[in-house]
Amino acid sequence: MKNYLLLCGGVGGAKLALGFSKILAESNLTIAVNTGDDFKHLNLKICPDLDTVLYTLANESDLSKGWGRADESWEMLGALKQLGGETWFQLGDKDLATHIIRTQLLADGATLSQVTQELCSRFGVQSKVLPMSDETVETYIQTKNRLLSFQEYFVKFQCGPPVTDFVFKGLDKAKFNPLIDLEAFDEIIICPSNPFVSINPIIQLEGLNQFLKLHPERVNVVSPIVNSQSLKGPTSKIMHELGLEVSVNSIANFYKDYASTIFVDELDNDQLDCLHTSGFKTFTAPLVMKSLQSKIHLAQSIVGFLEGN
Amino acid sequence: MKNYLLLCGGVGGAKLALGFSKILAESNLTIAVNTGDDFKHLNLKICPDLDTVLYTLANESDLSKGWGRADESWEMLGALKQLGGETWFQLGDKDLATHIIRTQLLADGATLSQVTQELCSRFGVQSKVLPMSDETVETYIQTKNRLLSFQEYFVKFQCGPPVTDFVFKGLDKAKFNPLIDLEAFDEIIICPSNPFVSINPIIQLEGLNQFLKLHPERVNVVSPIVNSQSLKGPTSKIMHELGLEVSVNSIANFYKDYASTIFVDELDNDQLDCLHTSGFKTFTAPLVMKSLQSKIHLAQSIVGFLEGN
Repeated sequence: MKNYLLLCGGVGGAKLALGFSKILAESNLTIAVNTGDDFKHLNLKICPDLDTVLYTLANESDLSKGWGRADESWEMLGALKQLGGETWFQLGDKDLATHIIRTQLLADGATLSQVTQELCSRFGVQSKVLPMSDETVETYIQTKNRLLSFQEYFVKFQCGPPVTDFVFKGLDKAKFNPLIDLEAFDEIIICPSNPFVSINPIIQLEGLNQFLKLHPERVNVVSPIVNSQSLKGPTSKIMHELGLEVSVNSIANFYKDYASTIFVDELDNDQLDCLHTSGFKTFTAPLVMKSLQSKIHLAQSIVGFLEGN
Repeated sequence: MKNYLLLCGGVGGAKLALGFSKILAESNLTIAVNTGDDFKHLNLKICPDLDTVLYTLANESDLSKGWGRADESWEMLGALKQLGGETWFQLGDKDLATHIIRTQLLADGATLSQVTQELCSRFGVQSKVLPMSDETVETYIQTKNRLLSFQEYFVKFQCGPPVTDFVFKGLDKAKFNPLIDLEAFDEIIICPSNPFVSINPIIQLEGLNQFLKLHPERVNVVSPIVNSQSLKGPTSKIMHELGLEVSVNSIANFYKDYASTIFVDELDNDQLDCLHTSGFKTFTAPLVMKSLQSKIHLAQSIVGFLEGN
């Protein structure tokens, strides 16, 4: 069995990570998660993508919302609202326990990697989940009028303001997580997450960026675009605003220096010729992951293709 | 109308403070609250006595428990427990909103006095409630085998270990809250709180200590002992352990350098002669405050006595 490294953002990435976690041995799977969305809110350290991956793998995620914990309650947030506190970021009572533990462990001197491994252990998650870096990288969205932090853009303004560019503060000083030994992986999977805000901060990190450019033959993209639309989130809206065609081709073009294979949904078969012309190997599979079975099936398809079965 | 300063611990003090708040104009009442029990827990700044006073005055306290908020839920604590977090200190979901706001405001640079006034305003509490000091004083309980922080003693060990002494860390560097101009008060009321752990840290503070010794004629004690028992909490247990008789006389003796008048319940009338011999003026009134009406009635009795009505 090959060793797999998943590069992963929030919801879409977490779904595929769950599929992989069900079919691979723990020792064959590492999941590196975007932390560019992390922020401090109400003095709590919140890592939205890590939490989404954690809750998804622990079978504790709210499947209807796509984020947060299942069977969540909102008593603290209600009390906070009554006291005039900031309530634009939805903090559920159960979710809060995660942030409180993380914030305390970090304050006690643990690294985010150590905290993440500790939380995985407490949630009973066996897979190796790690932050992309232990250094702070902060994703900002340049909109027409002002620079917004990612959570302001994503939650407070509901992805409304048109995007012109992205800023990753701290990226120049951050390194890809040294606990992840890149040479150990036969295949690197770029999950179907937002390329601009979820994956780009990961693949620009020192250490990983150079490695991907040297070894694009090991790197495989799972398209976040299906039937010329993004499955979830603002990917297609952002592509429009950046003047890009909303297509698998645009995704391949975005990753052209880093990857050699792209997984495409059957609904985008019309893109295959163009992808081949651009030098990509392609494999067609159903990319929509609504059920657990479809997540497992996609992971099986990818592994089957990459291992020549 | 005279100006009143209340020195106040948790539950007993908060009850009397509520009574006073119902009969005095806001400008005539200031409540200085013990902060020796304050502690940092799960990276949150928690001020149990200030919260009890705040919730009581805001009509938001859980009357059956005597602490915490009414209609409380415990979802975060349940999730924390599942994750192996520290759950010995009961943190309700609504209560948590208070701690989160306080912790954030302090982290943003506000003093505890400013935070307390802000919280009063947000809870709609008109009375002037202030911490005894903006400096940190930490109450420790010396037990036979080890020194326990107050919350460990009070909550974790349920006041079990026999007490031999008290340590107030930081007391030598702390000053009584300078926002409280002692000369402005005609009467100072020592509320029926635990003398050893709730009131002593207040009256030992630089500024207040000297003032009380110079002006004991302005200082009035409301006995926390009724019918030779403490109404709530470990006062009588601690008195036993310290080798003190559990009586109003022992309370008067504790405060003999600081106060000249003591309010005594009718059930302790047998103590009056001895109290007079010790130089105390006495006034007898029902001290048990179960209903709102009894709280108001006691405050009215005290004010009536002190204003010669």
